[in-house]
Amino acid sequence: MAKRADILIRFGKRVCNLRKEQGYSQENIAYACEFDRTYLGGIERGERKLSLRNIEWVADTLEISLTELMDVV
Amino acid sequence: MAKRADILIRFGKRVCNLRKEQGYSQENIAYACEFDRTYLGGIERGERKLSLRNIEWVADTLEISLTELMDVV
Repeated sequence: MAKRADILIRFGKRVCNLRKEQGYSQENIAYACEFDRTYLGGIERGERKLSLRNIEWVADTLEISLTELMDVV
Repeated sequence: MAKRADILIRFGKRVCNLRKEQGYSQENIAYACEFDRTYLGGIERGERKLSLRNIEWVADTLEISLTELMDVV
């Protein structure tokens, strides 16, 4: 079985995919989340540690449940 | 609609319930997670900020998926 990719990478890809599905740019969603755009870019590239609070903010901004957001395979 | 409880509180209760369902004591699971027991107690009481990496460790220790763990209502 292939080694599982780092959770930060998997989560970042998930956020990026969901954002694009919803037609948001990084700027749009970063504004809605009250994040800096570069911070969001860092999340999507798996370069940022995320707290549970920030994870919830992302879910709220995308208007999805935490479970849907965390379905990162 | 009642105001949603803080995510740290909801997550802490979820961890506590899952731990008890599996018959773990705080000591058992903290040992398996390589957390200090007092740190785990803090998580269960919603007093600790959690990073995504630590959330994944908890899920791995409980041998459940991230989505199941995050089903915090």
